Amino acid sequence: MASPAFLPELATQVVVPVAAVVGIAFAVLQWVLVSKVKLSPEPRRGDGSSGKAGAGASEYLIEEEEGLNEHNVVVKCAEIQNAISEGATSFLFTEYKYVGLFMSIFAVLIFLFLGSVEGFSTKSQPCHYSKGKTCKPALANALFSTIAFVLGAVTSLVSGFLGMKIATYANARTTLEARKGVGKAFITAFRSGAVMGFLLAASGLFVLYIAINLFGIYYGDDWEGLYEAITGYGLGGSSMALFGRVGGGIYTKAADVGADLVGKVERNIPEDDPRNPAVIADNVGDNVGDIAGMGSDLFGSYAESSCAALVVASISSFGINHEFTPMLYPLLISSVGIIACLITTLFATDFFEIKAVDEIEPALKKQLIISTAVMTVGIALVSWLGLPYTFTIFNFGAQKTVYNWQLFLCVAVGLWAGLVIGFVTEYYTSNAYSPVQDVADSCRTGAATNVIFGLALGYKSVIIPIFAIAFSIFLSFSLAAMYGVAVAALGMLSTIATGLAIDAYGPISDNAGGIAEMAGMSHRIRERTDALDAAGNTTAAIGKGFAIGSAALVSLALFGAFVSRAEISTVDVLTPKVFIGLIVGAMLPYWFSAMTMKSVGSAALKMVEEVRRQFNNIPGLMEGTTKPDYATCVKISTDASIKEMIPPGALVMLTPLIVGILFGVETLSGVLAGALVSGVQIAISASNTGGAWDNAKKYIEAGASEHARTLGPKGSDPHKAAVIGDTIGDPLKDTSGPSLNILIKLMAVESLVFAPFFATHGGILFKWL
Amino acid sequence: MASPAFLPELATQVVVPVAAVVGIAFAVLQWVLVSKVKLSPEPRRGDGSSGKAGAGASEYLIEEEEGLNEHNVVVKCAEIQNAISEGATSFLFTEYKYVGLFMSIFAVLIFLFLGSVEGFSTKSQPCHYSKGKTCKPALANALFSTIAFVLGAVTSLVSGFLGMKIATYANARTTLEARKGVGKAFITAFRSGAVMGFLLAASGLFVLYIAINLFGIYYGDDWEGLYEAITGYGLGGSSMALFGRVGGGIYTKAADVGADLVGKVERNIPEDDPRNPAVIADNVGDNVGDIAGMGSDLFGSYAESSCAALVVASISSFGINHEFTPMLYPLLISSVGIIACLITTLFATDFFEIKAVDEIEPALKKQLIISTAVMTVGIALVSWLGLPYTFTIFNFGAQKTVYNWQLFLCVAVGLWAGLVIGFVTEYYTSNAYSPVQDVADSCRTGAATNVIFGLALGYKSVIIPIFAIAFSIFLSFSLAAMYGVAVAALGMLSTIATGLAIDAYGPISDNAGGIAEMAGMSHRIRERTDALDAAGNTTAAIGKGFAIGSAALVSLALFGAFVSRAEISTVDVLTPKVFIGLIVGAMLPYWFSAMTMKSVGSAALKMVEEVRRQFNNIPGLMEGTTKPDYATCVKISTDASIKEMIPPGALVMLTPLIVGILFGVETLSGVLAGALVSGVQIAISASNTGGAWDNAKKYIEAGASEHARTLGPKGSDPHKAAVIGDTIGDPLKDTSGPSLNILIKLMAVESLVFAPFFATHGGILFKWL
Repeated sequence: MASPAFLPELATQVVVPVAAVVGIAFAVLQWVLVSKVKLSPEPRRGDGSSGKAGAGASEYLIEEEEGLNEHNVVVKCAEIQNAISEGATSFLFTEYKYVGLFMSIFAVLIFLFLGSVEGFSTKSQPCHYSKGKTCKPALANALFSTIAFVLGAVTSLVSGFLGMKIATYANARTTLEARKGVGKAFITAFRSGAVMGFLLAASGLFVLYIAINLFGIYYGDDWEGLYEAITGYGLGGSSMALFGRVGGGIYTKAADVGADLVGKVERNIPEDDPRNPAVIADNVGDNVGDIAGMGSDLFGSYAESSCAALVVASISSFGINHEFTPMLYPLLISSVGIIACLITTLFATDFFEIKAVDEIEPALKKQLIISTAVMTVGIALVSWLGLPYTFTIFNFGAQKTVYNWQLFLCVAVGLWAGLVIGFVTEYYTSNAYSPVQDVADSCRTGAATNVIFGLALGYKSVIIPIFAIAFSIFLSFSLAAMYGVAVAALGMLSTIATGLAIDAYGPISDNAGGIAEMAGMSHRIRERTDALDAAGNTTAAIGKGFAIGSAALVSLALFGAFVSRAEISTVDVLTPKVFIGLIVGAMLPYWFSAMTMKSVGSAALKMVEEVRRQFNNIPGLMEGTTKPDYATCVKISTDASIKEMIPPGALVMLTPLIVGILFGVETLSGVLAGALVSGVQIAISASNTGGAWDNAKKYIEAGASEHARTLGPKGSDPHKAAVIGDTIGDPLKDTSGPSLNILIKLMAVESLVFAPFFATHGGILFKWL
Repeated sequence: MASPAFLPELATQVVVPVAAVVGIAFAVLQWVLVSKVKLSPEPRRGDGSSGKAGAGASEYLIEEEEGLNEHNVVVKCAEIQNAISEGATSFLFTEYKYVGLFMSIFAVLIFLFLGSVEGFSTKSQPCHYSKGKTCKPALANALFSTIAFVLGAVTSLVSGFLGMKIATYANARTTLEARKGVGKAFITAFRSGAVMGFLLAASGLFVLYIAINLFGIYYGDDWEGLYEAITGYGLGGSSMALFGRVGGGIYTKAADVGADLVGKVERNIPEDDPRNPAVIADNVGDNVGDIAGMGSDLFGSYAESSCAALVVASISSFGINHEFTPMLYPLLISSVGIIACLITTLFATDFFEIKAVDEIEPALKKQLIISTAVMTVGIALVSWLGLPYTFTIFNFGAQKTVYNWQLFLCVAVGLWAGLVIGFVTEYYTSNAYSPVQDVADSCRTGAATNVIFGLALGYKSVIIPIFAIAFSIFLSFSLAAMYGVAVAALGMLSTIATGLAIDAYGPISDNAGGIAEMAGMSHRIRERTDALDAAGNTTAAIGKGFAIGSAALVSLALFGAFVSRAEISTVDVLTPKVFIGLIVGAMLPYWFSAMTMKSVGSAALKMVEEVRRQFNNIPGLMEGTTKPDYATCVKISTDASIKEMIPPGALVMLTPLIVGILFGVETLSGVLAGALVSGVQIAISASNTGGAWDNAKKYIEAGASEHARTLGPKGSDPHKAAVIGDTIGDPLKDTSGPSLNILIKLMAVESLVFAPFFATHGGILFKWL
């Protein structure tokens, strides 16, 4: 029973931080490579940017060099990039100001509520799980949970912000590289994505590692308390992510919908036309929503699944016997993940090159497959070296014996389920397959059939991912209880660096296209960026698939940890308290979606009015002789999103508190389960429906097949119907859909953090009755 | 403890059938009154139709008599009515042929599966619940369950068919009466609805009563077996309803969407224009979908909630002590409900009259309030007379003591929750309130914002109904366990006769308008039928709200009965078997919706092609000199719906069987709970979104307010956007949304019927592993 793990504690203490540092260093290296593309208007030398590329500059396919020496274009690109970067920075600062206030209040709440559990006593208390031992006072847990919460929030904030900075740094550079060919542009965009992916994965790991070691100085032998406090890290990360996703989501779609409705539909000018007053706001939105929001989101998932695994481990044999290496198994998985993704990245940037447009999507897909394959070996290694052959896992009151190969299976099933979800998402959202083509075809009979087919597609796309999630849950749950589910989530997120890289690649390409259009670059360059962007749409949907799938696993694991911590023995659906929680919980995603969609709609209406006003009142705007007033549109998006993100944010943050305090832990369990099983479906269907509409439109626009040409060209009736679908999909896929996975996770992690409080003081309504 | 009920067995044996007969007699009376409106082309006498009306004919407001003697118009109306009636009859016969086959196979399955429980032994067995007693063999239960199944299916079929016959009998009569004023037309339409409502409620009760007494001859003292067999009645009713709803729903919306897309959008001709080849199919659809489908659906709910209550009662003190009157408490509630609704109807037809267009909606709303108020008194009476002061109810293994006033509260909370749901639905779907007006306003910026706002409205409209359902469940569950939930559902359905009357009123008015348009009647008459129809849209949404709310309660009660019967003690979410069931169950409504929406979309595309073909190829069609080929369009709708109803039907019918056999009862419990809590949300939001879009369009068309006029008139850009929303809403509100409540109920009742089989032979996959 007690054969220790192969890897000694010292080795673990070295491996984890080293992997984190390597990840950060790799991110910096990628950034240096991107920065070699010069944005200053001096005449560039053709080979300047490819100094590091292993294959040598001469082998690059330089398809076109037109305008390479035109000062004007470079200056314009730099200008536009500055405007986007400034808008994004100013929005994020405004957002952080409001969110900061909210988070401060919430931090105080955490401290007060958790401190009150033992009446703010500073006396040590008997441990909950390690019977007979003495643990640190509840007040200490309150304090350290609060600190961990703040740490998580700050890490999430910094990750999102840096991601945005990198993306706005890279977008114009991608545009300029597109002049030299699609391969070069691809590498620039992908490298920039990698900067964000590795920075985020590595810094998340690093901060968590340091926090565990620092908190450990105080907690000493009391691992139960230590890892309970550490869960605050997940809560902080996710709370930040909630506002990032919702605020950013409303921002980006208000601008996008507003720009499209007037620009494309009424004025018949192309997307990203510099005459459109909302165009800068639109491009800013991509960065604050899809980059900063997505970054915070996945960071939150990562932090939460680590915390869920750690908190369950701490009351299992690892924690009880103080086995450091197996205890940090979740962090070891993430460390190996960074290395696996590093190897994977080289396949996209150095081992192969993209030579043609139709190689982009396969290259991105290959990233997913390679990282999964490499990581499977990594997991096997870690499970063999980092775990004892057999150990016990806490399973709702009992200890369950588990073998190391079983835990390998848990992590691996999560990892591979992620790949399955990724591929299914691709099938339903890429215009290379029949589902999107059918949707495009339905545009023949107008917008109504397009919407009906699109909604049906989204609903249908839920089936296989849910089976994949259900299978992973069943396997990991059966093998290793909630710890199994938590590490399955970690498995799905272990390739997060690669996932984020290809995910961030999308908005960067989207922006690059926008800049090309605004800078008045040639049609051929726009075609290249469009091709990058179309692949990006699919990868964005894949990224959302990962985010949702992992959110489902994570929140189940957190839910399980919450139930253990709240000392409930069963969550029986057939008790009134639990059932009403279940049905109300299943309703919450609808309430939340109603709020966010209405917010986007209202903000878009304001944007439309402003854009129309400018077109009508600014003479020479339509002719391109006068510049529009971009700043007002940026301000409208900023104001609207700040104002509108509060109610949905409050709904998510306050529900667990209200339910827990008034109705108690049983009803709260029901709410968590209901929100989880209902939210995951809406999230998947919303993001796939939106992605499919977007690509159906692109399919018609690109006109790459006989069938597509019968529907086009731009401006035809089917194309107009497709644009309407695309516009409806915007809030679905970029605001309400992806925010829902945060709703699921956040309510679970919040319940877990407050579990001691609810268990002591909760359920006052039922106590009264 | 053992104070008996006030009402002796004999009285109960009289009250129930008498109430049923009174209900049927009242339906016949209403039918006679409707039939006084002559459809033969002889010159009509003005007072002929109002012979029975208490207030006397002279007091009727005869606003207009134009065209009263025009033979032509009457002949045309009769012709159109015949065409609609023939189309509907032929569709229903085709449908019944296919469904009959399916049902026969299913009946055999029921017999074989249930018979196999004890290996087809004809020996009596020890009872499950009444320990120490001997019950009838499983083979007898198999046989009687099968008979009950067939009975339920046939009753449902006859109810739907008669409803359709009455509706197609009444529609042209309503049109003709509209010439005399909106009040007369209203009464004709409402009376026809009442025929259906009372016929359905009374015959459902009657058949159930007779079946219980006939089965009782064999079963004797074995009430456990008797009422277990009776649940087959609910399964039969609901299975039939499933195909009715899905098949009818696809039929009606394929025709409607197809007719609108070419007629309104492309050819710019009005709705129901006789030149549109799909117009007859569209009107047929209203009758087979909204009338026959809705009738079967609500009949199914009624049958199931009665069965759920009876099966729980049979293993409670009523059943164990063989107290006949309290045992039949559910049927007494329904009997009183018929009388209460009868009184209520007189308020609409005799005590008050409609004099102006804006009195229609309040009159219908008053029906809901009056029936609820009267019924509250009725419930109190039945609970006082029909129940002992105290008794025990079976509660998952234990017996729980309940007082009669507690049971009164259970029924009443269901009844009033229904009213709340009704009013909330009205608020969100009537164009008298801001939600629909906001949606209409969003048409200003095009179809995309209309769709975004409409979806958000639907999501938002879920909140209060879910709280109302949750509250009723909590109260009734806490007071009287699953029996409480079952009678709460019965309470919500106790006013079913009135509910169905106002529900059927809608499509009858819709058809009346269509006939007026096709017969070329004047604009003023069309305005009157439009006003009737707009109110009907809202009441249709209210009816769907009732159907969904009661479905939620019913299926929970059935679910509870299933769990008891399958001898599971808890349904713990935190076991892998249950959780995977929960998440997959929550996915099923999406899968089902994807199928039905895609079906409508595909069928509509075919319809569009045919309608376009006819407009292009039939010379003189657009000018109105040649008649279109209505029959081909009818055939397209028929073929498409028959073909397309099988896969979603099979999904619902086979899921419980597959899950139960392969994964066992725990996983099946999870599936039922998941489908329930997820499906109810989609069902409510889909039907309200669709209703809101429809009325937003009508709001713009009617132009009754300053605001509405800025959006109109017909043909304006906002109106076009509103038409797109309306078209998208069609499958949501009339196909996928309302079918979902059958999905929820049917899977639960099917699980209950097959519970003995699953408990004995189920879960083979887990047994292997």
